[in-house]
Amino acid sequence: MSSQARIGLLGRGTVGGAFADLVEARADAVAEVAGSKPAITGVLRRTEGDFDEILEGSDIVVELMGGTDPARDYVLRALQAGKHVVTANKQLVAQHGEELFAAARLNGVQLRFEAAVAGVVPVIRVIQESLAATEVTKVFGIVNGTTNFILSEMAKTGASYADVLARAQELGYAEADPTADVGGADAAAKMAILARLAFDSPVSLDDVSYEGITEISPEDMAYAKELGLSLKLLGVAEVSEEGVSVRVFPCFLYPGHPLAPVEGPFNAVMVQAPAITEITMSGPGAGGLATATAVLGDVVSILAGDAPVHRTLRELPIVSDVASSFYVHLEVADRPGVLAAVADVLGQAGISVKSMVQRGAGEQARLVMVLHETSERAFYGALSELGKLDFMRADPRAIRVIEEQFG
Amino acid sequence: MSSQARIGLLGRGTVGGAFADLVEARADAVAEVAGSKPAITGVLRRTEGDFDEILEGSDIVVELMGGTDPARDYVLRALQAGKHVVTANKQLVAQHGEELFAAARLNGVQLRFEAAVAGVVPVIRVIQESLAATEVTKVFGIVNGTTNFILSEMAKTGASYADVLARAQELGYAEADPTADVGGADAAAKMAILARLAFDSPVSLDDVSYEGITEISPEDMAYAKELGLSLKLLGVAEVSEEGVSVRVFPCFLYPGHPLAPVEGPFNAVMVQAPAITEITMSGPGAGGLATATAVLGDVVSILAGDAPVHRTLRELPIVSDVASSFYVHLEVADRPGVLAAVADVLGQAGISVKSMVQRGAGEQARLVMVLHETSERAFYGALSELGKLDFMRADPRAIRVIEEQFG
Repeated sequence: MSSQARIGLLGRGTVGGAFADLVEARADAVAEVAGSKPAITGVLRRTEGDFDEILEGSDIVVELMGGTDPARDYVLRALQAGKHVVTANKQLVAQHGEELFAAARLNGVQLRFEAAVAGVVPVIRVIQESLAATEVTKVFGIVNGTTNFILSEMAKTGASYADVLARAQELGYAEADPTADVGGADAAAKMAILARLAFDSPVSLDDVSYEGITEISPEDMAYAKELGLSLKLLGVAEVSEEGVSVRVFPCFLYPGHPLAPVEGPFNAVMVQAPAITEITMSGPGAGGLATATAVLGDVVSILAGDAPVHRTLRELPIVSDVASSFYVHLEVADRPGVLAAVADVLGQAGISVKSMVQRGAGEQARLVMVLHETSERAFYGALSELGKLDFMRADPRAIRVIEEQFG
Repeated sequence: MSSQARIGLLGRGTVGGAFADLVEARADAVAEVAGSKPAITGVLRRTEGDFDEILEGSDIVVELMGGTDPARDYVLRALQAGKHVVTANKQLVAQHGEELFAAARLNGVQLRFEAAVAGVVPVIRVIQESLAATEVTKVFGIVNGTTNFILSEMAKTGASYADVLARAQELGYAEADPTADVGGADAAAKMAILARLAFDSPVSLDDVSYEGITEISPEDMAYAKELGLSLKLLGVAEVSEEGVSVRVFPCFLYPGHPLAPVEGPFNAVMVQAPAITEITMSGPGAGGLATATAVLGDVVSILAGDAPVHRTLRELPIVSDVASSFYVHLEVADRPGVLAAVADVLGQAGISVKSMVQRGAGEQARLVMVLHETSERAFYGALSELGKLDFMRADPRAIRVIEEQFG
């Protein structure tokens, strides 16, 4: 491939637009890791562009138009013309995968589709590459962000399915016609793809039985809450002695299940195999930029060919001081003025206290504090000062604290 | 590469032995996905084998001896001889990575080391391949299984560090000399590797500041428990305007943090970038077979070259009936005999009840049950029968339930 990689882009909606911007922003970075610099040299949209011309002028075709007609025809023709193809189109791969895989093999080109399942969560790459020679027995998870958002909101607010759906539509988490998401068909297509890749056996979309979340009532959610259960729309693909089963259904998870804490529009997929126990991967399941990032990852893999080469692209200085929050445990003699002296040392260092408890009395007295974020250098300086105070019965102890939440 | 891939194996301890067995067991599967069949054609151990002979007779060298001397010399010579190398050796990559990367580039061969960080959790592949062109800003997580096991046990049992360490040693989760694990040096080496790859900037092991868990007291754990906090040994690598900081330290996590539920000898790594929000990956961090599986994944990637080819290796039948547990919600008229009639329908279908509550009375009465696992076909047959009973005030509702726990 030449030092410029020409990309023909089919479709320029939300994801297509984000991808075009991303290619422009990251072209130099791609060139450095992959050896050729990508540029979008043709764009096909409803009102613009000629497919044959775009095909002729491309090294890689990126299909982000959605639907299967004419996407199937275009992708097939691109593969037959010896072009690599990257697509984010789950329906295309779920319905016409075998035909497209065969065309890619026959023409010695790559067909990549990481973004078709779980957005930027790298489940396709992990199943196909990391675990290519591993006997995977089960793949399951949350592969539809819209329904996970709706179920999370229903659990949190007690509102009805219809009310939460309306809210999800306002926020852009659900489409105007949400049927494919809430009815389970979207998740079914994704699970068909995962099952096919994990088990090396053809799985057609018709083989997947699916249910959606439209019948879930606030009452069921209330009972679940009492029992500590959380409700998720799960896709489950598993292989047994009898064969393969691929299903999508709403399901209560007991607390402690690794998928139970996955909230909002996130996706999470677990892969099980005897040799590895299980791997869990989670992240944003959709969003223009995240999906475009997954598409670009596939483009980079095509351009880079074999292998990562561990280039040094910059020499960043090492930062020796950072900001942290701390838990501090002080064993003190219980006498007047102790608290004031401690507060004074912290105040001098510009450190403020977030919460504090005093426990015990006399020789058992302890101050336990959580401090607001501060420079570690300033903190350890203050800690050393605290250690010198005459009412300390032991060296002060400190442990960092992280407060950030999921997502 | 010929249709046989000759592997020279350096080291045959726990991981080396598991890898040798795995190659034998999965050779045909590898041949099908990668086009060449691997075989171990030479083994170097303290009492057996000659390095030069093994090198001469190999296409790929797999280094599982550990330590840096003579591993560094052997790996360097293998790369210089034009052989691809796969290693699980974190100290080797953390201390001599730049030299080895340069040798691989110069000789046009691959150096892969997925197993060096977080075992079979595919964090190296995801950072280097999926996110190769993405500007990663932070990589952090739990990268030492021994310390996570110890901290989990301390939290669960209230026992002291020393007692739990002794137990971990008995169970094989901690080595006889646990210094590198519990002191944080092992995690520091892994974080140096992740930082180097994520930020494309050299990070030496000396740049990593680290603390271990040896000073953690049962008292701190008790306070943490009261506050709902969990204690983890975290590795944190982040980039800011000032540069890079890479640190390892014990840290309290608030509930809701995605790493808080990671218990026992598991590893979990989060990667953050503006374009993707964050990806979280978790799984077993060690274990002979899991580590060997990660090594084999690297071997397969070298053999397969460019790309997955989506072969159909088998045609598995589709299973239409599976076993599930169900939650059932029945709105019933509150009168004598209702419960007996419901129990009779379930009993006839061979379905047993795990738990049941009755709520309300009269026109508000409800039976809510969780059933033991049963054939879905039998269950839906019984549900249909329940729907016909004359005291039902609405169609029965059913939702599946999954009880399995993490790990």
